[in-house]
Amino acid sequence: MEYRKIKDEDDDHDDVASDLESLKGKSHAVAASSNIALVGAGSNERTNWKRKGVVTCALTILTSSQAILIVWSKRAGKYEYSVTTANFLVETLKCALSLLALTRIWKNEGVTDDNRLSTTYDEVKVFPIPAALYLFKNLLQYYIFAYVDAPGYQILKNLNIISTGVLYRIILKRKLSEIQWAGFILLCCGCTTAQLNSNSDRVLQTSLPGWTMAIVMALLSGFAGVYTEAIIKKRPSRNINVQNFWLYVFGMAFNAVAIVIQDFDAVANKGFFHGYSFITVLMILNHALSGIAVSMVMKYADNIVKVYSTSVAMLLTAVVSVFLFNFHLSLAFFLGSTVVSVSVYLHSAGKLRL
Amino acid sequence: MEYRKIKDEDDDHDDVASDLESLKGKSHAVAASSNIALVGAGSNERTNWKRKGVVTCALTILTSSQAILIVWSKRAGKYEYSVTTANFLVETLKCALSLLALTRIWKNEGVTDDNRLSTTYDEVKVFPIPAALYLFKNLLQYYIFAYVDAPGYQILKNLNIISTGVLYRIILKRKLSEIQWAGFILLCCGCTTAQLNSNSDRVLQTSLPGWTMAIVMALLSGFAGVYTEAIIKKRPSRNINVQNFWLYVFGMAFNAVAIVIQDFDAVANKGFFHGYSFITVLMILNHALSGIAVSMVMKYADNIVKVYSTSVAMLLTAVVSVFLFNFHLSLAFFLGSTVVSVSVYLHSAGKLRL
Repeated sequence: MEYRKIKDEDDDHDDVASDLESLKGKSHAVAASSNIALVGAGSNERTNWKRKGVVTCALTILTSSQAILIVWSKRAGKYEYSVTTANFLVETLKCALSLLALTRIWKNEGVTDDNRLSTTYDEVKVFPIPAALYLFKNLLQYYIFAYVDAPGYQILKNLNIISTGVLYRIILKRKLSEIQWAGFILLCCGCTTAQLNSNSDRVLQTSLPGWTMAIVMALLSGFAGVYTEAIIKKRPSRNINVQNFWLYVFGMAFNAVAIVIQDFDAVANKGFFHGYSFITVLMILNHALSGIAVSMVMKYADNIVKVYSTSVAMLLTAVVSVFLFNFHLSLAFFLGSTVVSVSVYLHSAGKLRL
Repeated sequence: MEYRKIKDEDDDHDDVASDLESLKGKSHAVAASSNIALVGAGSNERTNWKRKGVVTCALTILTSSQAILIVWSKRAGKYEYSVTTANFLVETLKCALSLLALTRIWKNEGVTDDNRLSTTYDEVKVFPIPAALYLFKNLLQYYIFAYVDAPGYQILKNLNIISTGVLYRIILKRKLSEIQWAGFILLCCGCTTAQLNSNSDRVLQTSLPGWTMAIVMALLSGFAGVYTEAIIKKRPSRNINVQNFWLYVFGMAFNAVAIVIQDFDAVANKGFFHGYSFITVLMILNHALSGIAVSMVMKYADNIVKVYSTSVAMLLTAVVSVFLFNFHLSLAFFLGSTVVSVSVYLHSAGKLRL
């Protein structure tokens, strides 16, 4: 559970990736003049594909190692730290990494219109929204457990896949081909199938308020993702680290609110770092890096790629766990993985010819 | 189990359908001159599509009511008849219906080269092969239960889907598009998912001989289906009832052998019709009609359509059983059905442009 909570909070931010970015040598001078310059430049096409591939792989590996860290930390029996403080630290770390990357870029390339930190109120005013949506969703999470148990909630979370696809279509007005939609439905079915266990059927007995909350949460999460993509892509030439900085600053602020609402007593009595261990530090580091990878995927790819990437990561985690923790895979897992694999194929085979 | 056994035996034969056929008014005079005349005739295109649709729907409905009859008969607690005698009667009934249809056709259209019963040795010699393959497969069935339990066997039977697709490609040299292959893999996954229950994982512990037998049985079953299509389609102008007559005559013969091998003592001691009830008669009637529908699908469509049709029938059965027998559907069933539905869509969306 905690893993998911941390992860969701991450979904809207980024920054070590600045290294990645400077590595690619993005030509700011050219890009500054036009919104589309970076995207359609033709000779940049291959660089864009490579960048897209690198950030997607990074997200997949980070997300799957995230889940492995969770299992490991549970095995170690250390899991008593406050999740809200960890989330706050994740945001802080991401914010710091963004600033670090920016200072490097300023040193190498000078301060330009695109990497300048002070941005207009008009540009910045949208950045609190994703963080606010996640906060609201995480607060709802406390109430949904009155209606669904934790494994049931994991199953219902796959509704995120569908809500992301639908909102991506409606809000970003980006089209998927019919084959790609088929693939997206399969992704949702495949992920759910892979998670099936003997108690999964209980989720069908979820009451109407439970379903409503699950759907609202899926919509909030999907909306936050799609909204983040919209604001990051609105000005493609803007350096991603500037955009991330603002995302993460508001992420810090809203997570501070979450600490006050949810864990004030625990933090006041036991201290901010109560229950932290080496593995907690690793998890925070991992979450920060994955959060940055999510932002990069939003910038250079899109929410659909993000959903595929994190879904494939879930399957990777299970396979790796077989070797690390002697997990054994269920038939449902094999079936679900096959469906997800076919879905990935369909997403690429079904590309709209433009 | 018995349902499956009867059903497999059916898969290669047909006949009341003659009524359907005379209804369509196939022009024998024209067709006789050329092997392709019936298929590519242009104005016949719509008639062919309609015929294909009718036989496919008939097969789906018959197959799904078949399974419902099984459940009903099990509920009634009457299930003590010998399956081999029932199979023999199914073949006999189909054979009789073929002859009946032929006599009607002879009366209406006269005896032509295409509906004449006496066919050359060269044409007839291939008809025993499907029946022999099914007999061999059914004998194997007795041994596989040393390695797999009955629900596990039901799961493994879905390998038939893949073997049919592969053999269809190799033997009939018919091409499926990549999207259609994706759909076919999904059909197999979806059907298996829909059948998952809490004990399904045991199938993964199947030993090597168990797997080998399951694969051999899938290949035998797939080969019998594809081979039947090949011999039925080899001479498209030949009346389907003549082809069915030969299929079913050999079906009777091989099932007679099966009675001797498997149930000789029971039949000798208790009589041929021991344990028969009204519902047994209904089941035999239903199996005969489904068998005929299978032949028609082989003639006017193909094995791929047959596999889709019987898979969709399985899902229909479950849905109908909710109303008839108060079954409740599992989450796995919903997921599997969705995957199967997407698969059906992909099969049609992925049609190769010729």
